[in-house]
Amino acid sequence: MDQIPILKLGDFLLVTIQVELHDQLAMTLQDDLTQKLSRTHAKGVLIDISALEIVDSFIGRSLAQIAGIARVMDATTVLVGMRPAVAITLVELGMPLKGIRTALNVDKGMKLLRNAQEEDGFDEPAFEGDPPLAP
Amino acid sequence: MDQIPILKLGDFLLVTIQVELHDQLAMTLQDDLTQKLSRTHAKGVLIDISALEIVDSFIGRSLAQIAGIARVMDATTVLVGMRPAVAITLVELGMPLKGIRTALNVDKGMKLLRNAQEEDGFDEPAFEGDPPLAP
Repeated sequence: MDQIPILKLGDFLLVTIQVELHDQLAMTLQDDLTQKLSRTHAKGVLIDISALEIVDSFIGRSLAQIAGIARVMDATTVLVGMRPAVAITLVELGMPLKGIRTALNVDKGMKLLRNAQEEDGFDEPAFEGDPPLAP
Repeated sequence: MDQIPILKLGDFLLVTIQVELHDQLAMTLQDDLTQKLSRTHAKGVLIDISALEIVDSFIGRSLAQIAGIARVMDATTVLVGMRPAVAITLVELGMPLKGIRTALNVDKGMKLLRNAQEEDGFDEPAFEGDPPLAP
């Protein structure tokens, strides 16, 4: 297990974290995500952590960092599927994941991203190249 | 790692296999999927194996079995993200995964499932209970 797959779902990317994120894996994920964001022009990243029973401060920091990278690449990050125990631990650790949106499941996360896109006026169709010049 | 998460994406379920499927894990996945199919009334299952570098005969059999279970529960299974080397191995092993549809990525897999639904006349809205009797 040397890589976490990043799946393209329409306009968004989905990352399902199933294994404990160690140092190298977190770095690889950041690299892969940056490349995929730049290649696909995705506007949102969904990170599913429903398989994680424990989120320690390293994973919390890694997630915050990934969200930061996505933000500077013009994509919104939504963390989905957090277990109740994980939520308690994160707050107890003093990591309330500020700046990362959360949703209870992938469906709700996608709805959140779509709404965010519409609010931000990102609902124009995707196109390649520069927009046509105004006459 | 004792469980593979099953994510609900609209009408479909998505299973991302990232770790080597051993005996117990495959059984748990089958159980979980059956329960989720019965609870969500999902019409399609996407199994993403883009993280798998090797698919041996055990995994091949497990995937075929999962597809069989989904079929009797009235859902279509699409295997997505297969690596070229894995495709070669599967055919060499004599397991061409008959009866399982494949697609190159999740987006294409979802399109395939939607088309299959429309062809099969599954595009009516979901409802609970029996259809109204004809007058």
